[in-house]
Amino acid sequence: MSTFDAVELIRTKRDGGRLTDAAIDWLIRAYTDGRVSDEQMAAMAMAIFFRGLDGAELSRWTNAMIATGERMDFSSLSRPTVDKHSTGGVGDKITLPLAPLVAACGAAVPQLSGRGLGHTGGTLDKLEAIPGWRASLTNAEMLAQLESVGAVICAAGSGLAPADKKLYALRDVTATVESIPMISASIMSKKIAEGTSSLVLDVKTGAGAFMKTFDDSRALAETMVGIGTAAGVNTVALITDMDAPLGRSAGNGLEVAESIEVLAGGGPADVVELTVALAREMLACAGIDTDPAAVLASGGAMDTWRAMIRAQGGDPEAPLPVARHTEVVAAPADGYLTGMDAMAVGLAAWRLGAGRATQGDPVQAAAGVTWHAGIGDQVRAGQPLFTLHTDTPKRMERGLEALVGAVTVADAPVERRPLVLERISAG
Amino acid sequence: MSTFDAVELIRTKRDGGRLTDAAIDWLIRAYTDGRVSDEQMAAMAMAIFFRGLDGAELSRWTNAMIATGERMDFSSLSRPTVDKHSTGGVGDKITLPLAPLVAACGAAVPQLSGRGLGHTGGTLDKLEAIPGWRASLTNAEMLAQLESVGAVICAAGSGLAPADKKLYALRDVTATVESIPMISASIMSKKIAEGTSSLVLDVKTGAGAFMKTFDDSRALAETMVGIGTAAGVNTVALITDMDAPLGRSAGNGLEVAESIEVLAGGGPADVVELTVALAREMLACAGIDTDPAAVLASGGAMDTWRAMIRAQGGDPEAPLPVARHTEVVAAPADGYLTGMDAMAVGLAAWRLGAGRATQGDPVQAAAGVTWHAGIGDQVRAGQPLFTLHTDTPKRMERGLEALVGAVTVADAPVERRPLVLERISAG
Repeated sequence: MSTFDAVELIRTKRDGGRLTDAAIDWLIRAYTDGRVSDEQMAAMAMAIFFRGLDGAELSRWTNAMIATGERMDFSSLSRPTVDKHSTGGVGDKITLPLAPLVAACGAAVPQLSGRGLGHTGGTLDKLEAIPGWRASLTNAEMLAQLESVGAVICAAGSGLAPADKKLYALRDVTATVESIPMISASIMSKKIAEGTSSLVLDVKTGAGAFMKTFDDSRALAETMVGIGTAAGVNTVALITDMDAPLGRSAGNGLEVAESIEVLAGGGPADVVELTVALAREMLACAGIDTDPAAVLASGGAMDTWRAMIRAQGGDPEAPLPVARHTEVVAAPADGYLTGMDAMAVGLAAWRLGAGRATQGDPVQAAAGVTWHAGIGDQVRAGQPLFTLHTDTPKRMERGLEALVGAVTVADAPVERRPLVLERISAG
Repeated sequence: MSTFDAVELIRTKRDGGRLTDAAIDWLIRAYTDGRVSDEQMAAMAMAIFFRGLDGAELSRWTNAMIATGERMDFSSLSRPTVDKHSTGGVGDKITLPLAPLVAACGAAVPQLSGRGLGHTGGTLDKLEAIPGWRASLTNAEMLAQLESVGAVICAAGSGLAPADKKLYALRDVTATVESIPMISASIMSKKIAEGTSSLVLDVKTGAGAFMKTFDDSRALAETMVGIGTAAGVNTVALITDMDAPLGRSAGNGLEVAESIEVLAGGGPADVVELTVALAREMLACAGIDTDPAAVLASGGAMDTWRAMIRAQGGDPEAPLPVARHTEVVAAPADGYLTGMDAMAVGLAAWRLGAGRATQGDPVQAAAGVTWHAGIGDQVRAGQPLFTLHTDTPKRMERGLEALVGAVTVADAPVERRPLVLERISAG
């Protein structure tokens, strides 16, 4: 492998030039090995923030990050693999009903997930509210469960794209997270290393999402679809609304309960709609011609859910934890609910104990927020609007503060914008 | 002192915002103490590369760097102090005749200087070609010499603006050197900390200078004059030509010899012109109404030179070292010399042993290049044009290579652009 001068490469990007394939390979490898320093990579990340990476640079960058670690291999499975990734939103528990639903339709769904940090919850934190359930599987356990059950939601091993892990930690302390090329490379390096044949991306947009504007969300979706396609992964993205939170709950055990309602044929309409929409995309990618709405209605997805939870040591029949303290917030006026600030709801759930401020903090299984009306519903002054749940009384006040002004009540109803705003595919 | 979040400050600058006075004070102090990491400062430096610092931010940044170290105090001197700084060029030995000339006119000239790195030589490296001369003085020795002799050229202590020292080393490895605000703050923090009342800046422009374009050179000059003026230092800048090298020699002992010629009333016309022009500016700043050309002609500057060299242990009468090997390059054609590439000449001198690649490398006192014709002179094919000097035979070939194509010979003479191109002062 050629060697390069890190300062020259930073200067090239800083001045608007392109990095060659060989330069990118060297840079990522040398950074992972410690031959390029953190301060040099920080300067490079900030230069990329301003100058970007073009499609070819970005594919190479992603591949170079993948090449620093192991790649999983699902080619021995009899089922086609298809994966889903969400960029994160408040109340986004879609993975929980979706993975067993798509598996019940015949695909293998390897959902390697993370823990939450900040105002959006982590899928593993949610499932850990189920007594006995464990997030860590060996690769052999994961493969066996994918073949037998069809769905696995577990912790991503540290062996996938270690360069991304190191780079993400650096970006976090250097204000270089908010870069569409670097976000895209970070997500896609892990997803491609996971070895799935197909991938459906749920790119959130709006007040409660990482990307607040539709244009930024579209740019992110297009960039990720481009990387996936270039790597031979059949990739599609849906851009979906995250102005208001999804469903009726935000919090770990609370979201598991809501997911079980959906698997049982009930649950909030928006959660059902998005679950089915994403399932259709995943099945189409996997080449499976089955109607997920019918499988959901038949109870087949619930059977797969139970098998999936049991396979990872969980008891799907055990009662979920209940918070020791609850507090109700009443609707402020008569009228129609026209807005609910997803960020405020996410912040309240986080303050109540559902999320963590720093990696490694514990989370409360029962903490969070439920709401009793959605956008477009009629409300009366004084009726219960939010219930706050926590095990820690002193957290209650700051949770309540977060919800002050979180809803808008108007004289006439408004139509919420469609949940699925746009579909992005290759070509 | 308030505390700030480094990530928030980087994000503010990255997104085009202003840093408050308190934020800048905290950032510089925390970086110097190690509470803000190198990777965070690297990201900040790259953000400043793209977003800049306005006049008020820059003055505060400079003052914050000064506040991390000691400040010198020349207020006890009976003479007015005036300092000069050059941004560096090939063959720029002007400090050597200038400091004793201005001192001979009645000012105190404290020239705290550095060693060379890269293609331009360092003033201390040049003076160390004089047998016995030493660069390190205590503050008390410096004050005594300023009072008695009027001029001192010595090594800047490490106590001045330690934040700048740390930041400069970081910028060097992160491709963030080329930023006009950060270059200005770096130079001016040291000059202001040195405690001079007046300062004349020689900002070089052209092929052999750090700033290649006139516009960049003017922006740098204006920025530095702004910082100096805001700090209460009477500051003036001359923008001077550095397309062709200054004088007739580049190299340590060779430039000392040329400086002594100037002090003796001879020497190359351009060196004399620039020395006198800078001396006039320095004397005007210091409020001294004496004609430096007359003092130079009278031999008064040479007397001060000898006193200055002797005061630092040097023998002004001792012969300068002579290189063991020389090689002559002939003029390529008949005609008029219309161009001489300062960068090529600087590179040749550096390769012959006059400069260093890495801090701490030794330099050769006798190595360098002399040239026997200047811009506008008539030359004949085959006449000696350059002489290369080195103690190391194996360096000769690469020195010769650097000079291939370094001169342009044409049928008609051209007028060299004026040496002093513009004068920048406050207001």
